[in-house]
Amino acid sequence: LDNEEIDHFRAEFLELHPYDQAQIFIEQSKKIRMQIYTYLSPDEMAEVFENIELDDIDSILTEMEPRFAADILAEMALDDAVDILNSLEQNEVASFLAIMNAKSANEIKDLLHYEEKTSGSIMTTEFVRVKSSMTIREALNHLRKEAPDAETIYYVYVIDDDKHLVGVISLRDIIISEEDWYVSDVMSDRIVSVPAGEDQESAAKMMRDYDLLALPVVDFQNHLLGIITVDDIMDVIQEEASEDYSKLAAVSDMDKVDTGAWMAAKKRLPWLIILLFLGMLTASLIGRFEETLDKVALLAIFIPLIAGMAGNTGTQALAVAVRGIATGESDQEGKLKILAREAGTGLITGLCCGVLITVIIYLWKDEFYLGLLVGISIMLTLIVATLAGSLIPLLMHKMKVDPAVASGPFITTINDIISILIYFGMATAFMDVLL
Amino acid sequence: LDNEEIDHFRAEFLELHPYDQAQIFIEQSKKIRMQIYTYLSPDEMAEVFENIELDDIDSILTEMEPRFAADILAEMALDDAVDILNSLEQNEVASFLAIMNAKSANEIKDLLHYEEKTSGSIMTTEFVRVKSSMTIREALNHLRKEAPDAETIYYVYVIDDDKHLVGVISLRDIIISEEDWYVSDVMSDRIVSVPAGEDQESAAKMMRDYDLLALPVVDFQNHLLGIITVDDIMDVIQEEASEDYSKLAAVSDMDKVDTGAWMAAKKRLPWLIILLFLGMLTASLIGRFEETLDKVALLAIFIPLIAGMAGNTGTQALAVAVRGIATGESDQEGKLKILAREAGTGLITGLCCGVLITVIIYLWKDEFYLGLLVGISIMLTLIVATLAGSLIPLLMHKMKVDPAVASGPFITTINDIISILIYFGMATAFMDVLL
Repeated sequence: LDNEEIDHFRAEFLELHPYDQAQIFIEQSKKIRMQIYTYLSPDEMAEVFENIELDDIDSILTEMEPRFAADILAEMALDDAVDILNSLEQNEVASFLAIMNAKSANEIKDLLHYEEKTSGSIMTTEFVRVKSSMTIREALNHLRKEAPDAETIYYVYVIDDDKHLVGVISLRDIIISEEDWYVSDVMSDRIVSVPAGEDQESAAKMMRDYDLLALPVVDFQNHLLGIITVDDIMDVIQEEASEDYSKLAAVSDMDKVDTGAWMAAKKRLPWLIILLFLGMLTASLIGRFEETLDKVALLAIFIPLIAGMAGNTGTQALAVAVRGIATGESDQEGKLKILAREAGTGLITGLCCGVLITVIIYLWKDEFYLGLLVGISIMLTLIVATLAGSLIPLLMHKMKVDPAVASGPFITTINDIISILIYFGMATAFMDVLL
Repeated sequence: LDNEEIDHFRAEFLELHPYDQAQIFIEQSKKIRMQIYTYLSPDEMAEVFENIELDDIDSILTEMEPRFAADILAEMALDDAVDILNSLEQNEVASFLAIMNAKSANEIKDLLHYEEKTSGSIMTTEFVRVKSSMTIREALNHLRKEAPDAETIYYVYVIDDDKHLVGVISLRDIIISEEDWYVSDVMSDRIVSVPAGEDQESAAKMMRDYDLLALPVVDFQNHLLGIITVDDIMDVIQEEASEDYSKLAAVSDMDKVDTGAWMAAKKRLPWLIILLFLGMLTASLIGRFEETLDKVALLAIFIPLIAGMAGNTGTQALAVAVRGIATGESDQEGKLKILAREAGTGLITGLCCGVLITVIIYLWKDEFYLGLLVGISIMLTLIVATLAGSLIPLLMHKMKVDPAVASGPFITTINDIISILIYFGMATAFMDVLL
């Protein structure tokens, strides 16, 4: 390892954006990574670490010297370091905190106890706060001093003597103000803030609606605890949408494309096996109508059609309801309205599809009564399945369960069962006409 | 309308955040909105307009005086005004531009011709650029002058004499630099930029990966055309994720919760009718096996189970592939790897579910050969359906079609057909053993 080579590597590597540094770093073999650790300072590694995904970081942390790892964690942006520690085992966290310098360890400890997915868990305490009695000049000087450590200096939060959040002032306003004005004259007291215990999705919605670059997090007495920055919120928006999406498809936790077949199978099998048992329930239901089926074997032909339509309309209704809940468009009052609308939608789509299928079967098989049976079954099925597709997520939301858990395949299987009951129930009742 | 009342309204209303102003404004009756127009200046209305959703703005624009509307559009943030005009009819756009002041009209015209969903279509030209030869003092003064009109002043872009983008400097760097340094000394030449024709999703991915507050948009010769700000990107991330989600559920364009039953039915019916015809195809397929079905009516019992499992695993594979493509995790090279992985996943899940169902049917119905038939069918079905679920979106991506169009229900129905062919094909072939 001659010195010239190290200098060359440092010059090239540090010229890159930290995100690109991280991309390169993560692709190296363990041997080369071990070398990189000796070339870079904890400070420089911290920037790389801030851009590595959580899933990859665990194995990297264990391969390096614990003290070096602790130094990196201490140098990182506070919220990113907390994210990493939150993903580790309790005893690993304790040992890192023990060898870290006391100041960083305390800052991290303060943030570690917030529950996952709350606003508190994604905030940072590295931000700039000023007193309302300062002048703009004092504020600017304070800002210059704090700039190297702060996550953002574009919003500065104003507190009173008891640390209550009383205002916000943007760097833009500071820049265009006269230096001897007071902060209290320039600041805006129209503050949007979020309680620390509030879901991170609410914070994301606020930042999106109000077009904020940072959002202050407060406790229930309006003390300023920290801020959430927009880069973290972009990840939250992406993450929450992906989560709803993967649940709709019944994949627990979306596989990354590079995961192997075993891992992928492990993530999907639990769902498939649950659905297999639900499917057995459907099978045993049809089994009860074996007598009917023996008499009119033609009935079997339309089973997948009816069950399929029930599944499709249910999935549509489910998706609308889940997104409505996620984007906060449905509040308590709106729920009955949603159900009424879904009932109407089910009725309209059911009538259209029912009439269409009756005509088709009549023309195709020359069987009017069979066509009518299938048509009426489809109509009733669509109404019930559409209602079920929106009722189930709304009920789950009411019971404080994440409605996205009612995945598409799950609703589909429930609706399969409903549709089979309707179809064979009607077929059995009107057997005389069919024979 | 006495003056005191107007003053009171203005004081209360203008105290609110523009987002809240918009929420209140949009809930008023037309009559009250007409009054509000007389109370507020175009400048003040522009801020309200920036926070109203596109769907609602059309009807509001038509109810107001065209000249007042044109003034509002001219005062709005450029990119928001362009978004609105892009949603209007061609002749409406022309008439608004005709009565607008020439400067704003020209700025808007420059942005109107970018295709929907490209980076160019969401950028703004209201940003701050400086020359690299300026001193920090000059740059800061320039910034102060431009601040009222610019979308963001937190990133300042540095251009050379031919308007090529050569660097970027953050307000943070400006603030902590000495006033007589040169911009070229402080700026970073490590620039991340996006071509104007590039998909807005790529821009979103860049901003998310590199944690940027603004992203410069360039032409193919690296001339700086405009910037994209993070508030617009948050909307893009949300929008694109919602779009994938609603397509997975086969709802063209997600209904908002407040849409009526007719509108909702209109959006879902086209899908349902396509799926109905695909379902008829499944029915006619089973019809071909009527003879087999007549001999062993018990076969019908397991139709929904097998078709359902095919649909479920296909939807899982589809979701993984679509998200992989959307997040850019799959490039050309990765596609064969994805397919190989999905084949492996299908084999593993197929084996597990196949063995499980054979055992269950044997224990439940005491039918070993029927159980084996269903088990092997499920195994083959899961392998083929899993492959189909990832192959179809990958092929669509290759053919430059948005893979999310291959919605869950669509894949499910395709897989229904495949599974029925496998199941009844095998049952017909091994009829002797079953009887």
